[in-house]
Amino acid sequence: MESNARAILLIGDGMADRPVASLGNRTPLEAADTPNLNRLAREGESGMMDPISPGIRAGSDTGHLAILGYDPYQVYTGRGPFEAAGIGMEVSRGDVSFRCNFSTVDADMAVIDRRAGRITEGTDQLAQAINGLQIEDVTFFFKESVAHRGALVMHGPGLGAKVSDIDPHREGERILEATPLDPQDGASRKTAHLLNQWVRRTYEILKDHPVNLQRYAKGLPPANIVLPRGVGVAPDIDEFDKLHDVVSACVVETGLIRGIARYVNMDLIDVPGATGGLDSDIMAMGQAILTALEDHNFVLCNVKGPDVAGHDGDGEAKVEIIHRLDEMVGLLYENLGEEDVLVVTADHATPCVVKDHSGDSVPIVFWCPTGRVDDVTEFHERAVTRGGLGRIRGVNVMPMITQLMGVQEKFGA
Amino acid sequence: MESNARAILLIGDGMADRPVASLGNRTPLEAADTPNLNRLAREGESGMMDPISPGIRAGSDTGHLAILGYDPYQVYTGRGPFEAAGIGMEVSRGDVSFRCNFSTVDADMAVIDRRAGRITEGTDQLAQAINGLQIEDVTFFFKESVAHRGALVMHGPGLGAKVSDIDPHREGERILEATPLDPQDGASRKTAHLLNQWVRRTYEILKDHPVNLQRYAKGLPPANIVLPRGVGVAPDIDEFDKLHDVVSACVVETGLIRGIARYVNMDLIDVPGATGGLDSDIMAMGQAILTALEDHNFVLCNVKGPDVAGHDGDGEAKVEIIHRLDEMVGLLYENLGEEDVLVVTADHATPCVVKDHSGDSVPIVFWCPTGRVDDVTEFHERAVTRGGLGRIRGVNVMPMITQLMGVQEKFGA
Repeated sequence: MESNARAILLIGDGMADRPVASLGNRTPLEAADTPNLNRLAREGESGMMDPISPGIRAGSDTGHLAILGYDPYQVYTGRGPFEAAGIGMEVSRGDVSFRCNFSTVDADMAVIDRRAGRITEGTDQLAQAINGLQIEDVTFFFKESVAHRGALVMHGPGLGAKVSDIDPHREGERILEATPLDPQDGASRKTAHLLNQWVRRTYEILKDHPVNLQRYAKGLPPANIVLPRGVGVAPDIDEFDKLHDVVSACVVETGLIRGIARYVNMDLIDVPGATGGLDSDIMAMGQAILTALEDHNFVLCNVKGPDVAGHDGDGEAKVEIIHRLDEMVGLLYENLGEEDVLVVTADHATPCVVKDHSGDSVPIVFWCPTGRVDDVTEFHERAVTRGGLGRIRGVNVMPMITQLMGVQEKFGA
Repeated sequence: MESNARAILLIGDGMADRPVASLGNRTPLEAADTPNLNRLAREGESGMMDPISPGIRAGSDTGHLAILGYDPYQVYTGRGPFEAAGIGMEVSRGDVSFRCNFSTVDADMAVIDRRAGRITEGTDQLAQAINGLQIEDVTFFFKESVAHRGALVMHGPGLGAKVSDIDPHREGERILEATPLDPQDGASRKTAHLLNQWVRRTYEILKDHPVNLQRYAKGLPPANIVLPRGVGVAPDIDEFDKLHDVVSACVVETGLIRGIARYVNMDLIDVPGATGGLDSDIMAMGQAILTALEDHNFVLCNVKGPDVAGHDGDGEAKVEIIHRLDEMVGLLYENLGEEDVLVVTADHATPCVVKDHSGDSVPIVFWCPTGRVDDVTEFHERAVTRGGLGRIRGVNVMPMITQLMGVQEKFGA
């Protein structure tokens, strides 16, 4: 099918909320002044969306996977693969990956500091010293991330991802032996067996590394071991562009969403000033979306700020970031044409009263000049409950976009 | 459970739409004067229905399968089996079927005319000459359809349906060899191997057939080969009456829906004057429904006209056919009793602005004197979004009908 339509999927991370006392028992979206979001609601069709299914508390990763068209129950085994991809590591189908901390242990392998004094310098040199180790037929790729964090990718044949944690998650206790959750699971037994060896090797290599010798000298806890957690196997899933017949780019701030986008082979756009915090330059992200639309017909954008404010329980800060997101929507609106599609939603709710992700539904609006229009005139949790979309799910979003764009193949005759 | 209830499921093919500029940005259902449909909405319960799931562009075949209670992702591999059944061929579970064209090839098997000059006469004789060929343990049944069209049913043990096309879909190119999509798939390898032989055999038999000798003499392209496409395997599914505990008939105009109804063993009712076009005698179809209700307790009726108007992008024609469908609803209403059920919906949207099937939801209304009533007073896309049914799916429709009829077995105690 021929189509010149372009689509933007704008996700306010954790933007949905519950009534906030300090906002007069309104949600931040209700309390905020959002003329541009309300125009989308007035000219388009709104509704409620459950990222996974009603009541399920989605992560940013599982929420995005679902919204991008991948059933998280099928493809998500853990955060590791997407974290690793998010910091630029090569992750292949079947690789087993972990989030990791540089930590401090004593000679008995008891954990002194799970974050090695929140080390910020020299982790690139430490990572380099342990990257690429080979144990039997498996290669262990390691890369540092922000502060004490890093990611590990085990690449080799016949690896399983059902292994117990090495990190005891408590200081003062000895590190644990990874074991397969099911003793019959040979692939996971192999992973556990080699992983235990690798963790010991990181200790042997790191304990006398020059970076740590300097830390001893300064009285700082050494980053003398790497403790993996958050295991996951890289799933065998279609590339996003192939799955949905689009040419896609993404403008996102956080490593986790970046990792998902990279893994499904969307083009990643860097935006100077996009910090992932409340100070992020959201208009610069809007400009980046418009630039990306010059040679892509689908752009995913995630604005992290609302989630940060929600985790802080700060309703006023959430209102403020929503104001800026609304301005960005105004910019996008001015630059879209008669065939284009603009969808705004959230990947999950992060209610200020919860200070964490909740299982509440999130509002969603589909704007498309040739699409349907309902009676909703404002974009917030309460208004959209009377919207023309009713209650949909995350995995419905992409088909609903591609049918409006006119790029979706018909199922049947 | 004893029940005297009867149900009518009336499907306006492609009746759902989006705003149409020439209709004042109303949909055809909004623009049309539909007192009888509105009465159903007022006295019954309405909502949105996704034939497959939100955003998915359903075909008429997959849409009807879902609405009749068969998950198309489970049972639908391609159009062939239902096309073949629709022209009256015997199709058994496991048979592999194709839509076919009579085509013209040269001696090098290059395609000169994919439609053999849109041949209209003599195709019954040509079909007879190739019908019933046996290759190894497989019988090839062939029957002509309208003009250059026909259908092929391969009947025999161990056949698979995952084979590539023979039709190059372009004139001037040589016909292709069918191959199994997966070389390990022995059943499909068998299908491909025998199908290639059969296509050659049609050429050997047809090239000097008297019908073609006459066409040569008149300077017309000969129908000297049959090119199959649209492969599908006949699924192993329950008969409709057994699945839903009803005695069913169907009043439909098009071969494809007829094929589905025949395949699930519904009684087919012929209606003189039901053309499948905009000129169809819809009141005659209404009378046929009432007659069928004398010895059936469930009647499916599909009116094709709205889809035709939608494909033409002709909003005014769609309004006109909706007016006539509304009249038919009036006739049905006058003849239904206190226990009866009347459901009106569409198998998919065919918006005038798209001129093809879209993935938009369709309106649905359930009318039953003993059933629930909501606040909706008009039957169209926008009004039903506030309906009592919310947003349901195609596969929900039959259980919702049979529970109102009182013929559905309880699941549990």
